[in-house]
Amino acid sequence: MPSRFRASVPVTDDWAHFDFAIADGVATVTLNRPEKLNPLTFESYADLRDLLAELPHHTDVRVLVIRGEGKGFCGGGDVNEIIGELIKMEPRDLFLFTKVGLSGGDMGAAYLLPRVVGLGRATELLMLGGVIDAATADRYGLVSRLVGDDEIGGAVAELARTLADGPTLALAQTKALLTRELDMPLGAAMELDAMTQALLMTTKDHAEFHAAFNEKRPPRWQ
Amino acid sequence: MPSRFRASVPVTDDWAHFDFAIADGVATVTLNRPEKLNPLTFESYADLRDLLAELPHHTDVRVLVIRGEGKGFCGGGDVNEIIGELIKMEPRDLFLFTKVGLSGGDMGAAYLLPRVVGLGRATELLMLGGVIDAATADRYGLVSRLVGDDEIGGAVAELARTLADGPTLALAQTKALLTRELDMPLGAAMELDAMTQALLMTTKDHAEFHAAFNEKRPPRWQ
Amino acid sequence: MPSRFRASVPVTDDWAHFDFAIADGVATVTLNRPEKLNPLTFESYADLRDLLAELPHHTDVRVLVIRGEGKGFCGGGDVNEIIGELIKMEPRDLFLFTKVGLSGGDMGAAYLLPRVVGLGRATELLMLGGVIDAATADRYGLVSRLVGDDEIGGAVAELARTLADGPTLALAQTKALLTRELDMPLGAAMELDAMTQALLMTTKDHAEFHAAFNEKRPPRWQ
Repeated sequence: MPSRFRASVPVTDDWAHFDFAIADGVATVTLNRPEKLNPLTFESYADLRDLLAELPHHTDVRVLVIRGEGKGFCGGGDVNEIIGELIKMEPRDLFLFTKVGLSGGDMGAAYLLPRVVGLGRATELLMLGGVIDAATADRYGLVSRLVGDDEIGGAVAELARTLADGPTLALAQTKALLTRELDMPLGAAMELDAMTQALLMTTKDHAEFHAAFNEKRPPRWQ
Repeated sequence: MPSRFRASVPVTDDWAHFDFAIADGVATVTLNRPEKLNPLTFESYADLRDLLAELPHHTDVRVLVIRGEGKGFCGGGDVNEIIGELIKMEPRDLFLFTKVGLSGGDMGAAYLLPRVVGLGRATELLMLGGVIDAATADRYGLVSRLVGDDEIGGAVAELARTLADGPTLALAQTKALLTRELDMPLGAAMELDAMTQALLMTTKDHAEFHAAFNEKRPPRWQ
Repeated sequence: MPSRFRASVPVTDDWAHFDFAIADGVATVTLNRPEKLNPLTFESYADLRDLLAELPHHTDVRVLVIRGEGKGFCGGGDVNEIIGELIKMEPRDLFLFTKVGLSGGDMGAAYLLPRVVGLGRATELLMLGGVIDAATADRYGLVSRLVGDDEIGGAVAELARTLADGPTLALAQTKALLTRELDMPLGAAMELDAMTQALLMTTKDHAEFHAAFNEKRPPRWQ
């Protein structure tokens, strides 16, 4: 169901370098080379880039789940599949760019990681490229929720359901504010918060909340 | 005891929408609608705005404590008291703006929260609006000190006493630097630190520290 | 072994205000006034400033370790050695500038600390100047690795060895990106990451990684 604002490039559900499915408002990308710990390649990067440009035009998609087939999520990647080779050697080594003579600060990592786990821990992870276990990642604030292997499918489905059933515009704006306000001074951030809130107050979703509240029923979000 | 720099608007201790008291340099605002978990309203916002503009002119106030009557601090608030209504339904639901179709990034939250708990946890809290218990808030760095219900009065009084008995200007400048330097590059921040320190070295408080040190007595801060 | 880009000021290994040694690519500064908990003075600041300007011209130095003689690392410092005096009184009091009527935000602390431990904990530490134990510092992300007193020498030597044996340019650039990207917006940071990575791909170290990989031997980094 492409949006009317889509230009001539057709929308496709046919992606060659990962599995892709849409069900009940939830799109799922599954990296599908588990024998190599699902590394990223030139081709899968290109497909991801185009999918992410296209997804806002799928009016039936409200949440994107990215997952990996098999026992790991994604072993990273490299333009020459070098990292893929390395991973065969030492499959649990994360953040290992410095181990091939390259920078640990790749694709925004040197920007994002300090803002997630603090500068000290980010420096250690990107400089030394050590392995951290799930409990440590949780302690650092690098994971949102820690669940066992047999619970993860259910936990992801539940989270995706919650987001897909929620007020899309409000959730999207919240995420956008969190990202943009990392790069804004406090005063400007508060202005942006206020403008966003004023705009959202004029939406059908906010009106629906009022209606649902008065009729004592759950809201039906758009 | 208003400052000589106060203009024509009179200083008042008579606030309609919260309790207000000053004792021994410590001003205390008590949100006083415990039956509704002390929600904020248009009126209490306006009173807080004016009080905070006025407090620097109270030369007898060195610390401000904001507390809530009853079992909770403050259930947030809403311009139409909608959130107040919601709170009756589900009193422990924090960060729930997205649940009414509005943005979780309200009043600076999308700016401040990532800088306090990291981007990952801030995103989870503002997007999903879940409840977190006190131990989790402490683990995230969202609280400064975790004390039991029966200890909180004493702990707050002790902290307020420490701050009120401390060197006011040095403490105020430290707080201002922490806030301003979130929005400054490292080089400029170090210049500001150095200028501030040089200025504080000329103050009566720093001279008093020297005098007290030589006379082997505790300093009497201004 | 000074670099050819060194100007007329001679390189020296003879520093008066700390011990200095170079061994196997690892330079070590040892603050050597343990009876005063190794405070910094005007003179040792000046020596550190000049050493840090000179070190990039030592082509045989790849890592700098800064350590303190005796039971503590460094009790801080003060232009008049006032803090040195204080330390005799209360040797474990950290972050105590506010206790002498000065700002807690000295020498970049108000910039750096919130970016390491979050704004809430940084405010508490710089305003109140309390003592925190090693486990708390570890929980806050203020230390990279917590080891016992009798293990620290070995742990430091091992970490210095790992860094000295690593690809120097890649490690240096990773550290530079982490620092610079604290002050850059996301888009610019990703550009800088990409440019840095492209540059490092042209280096001898990255070529050496390929060669070593094909010859199934460990790389010899420059």
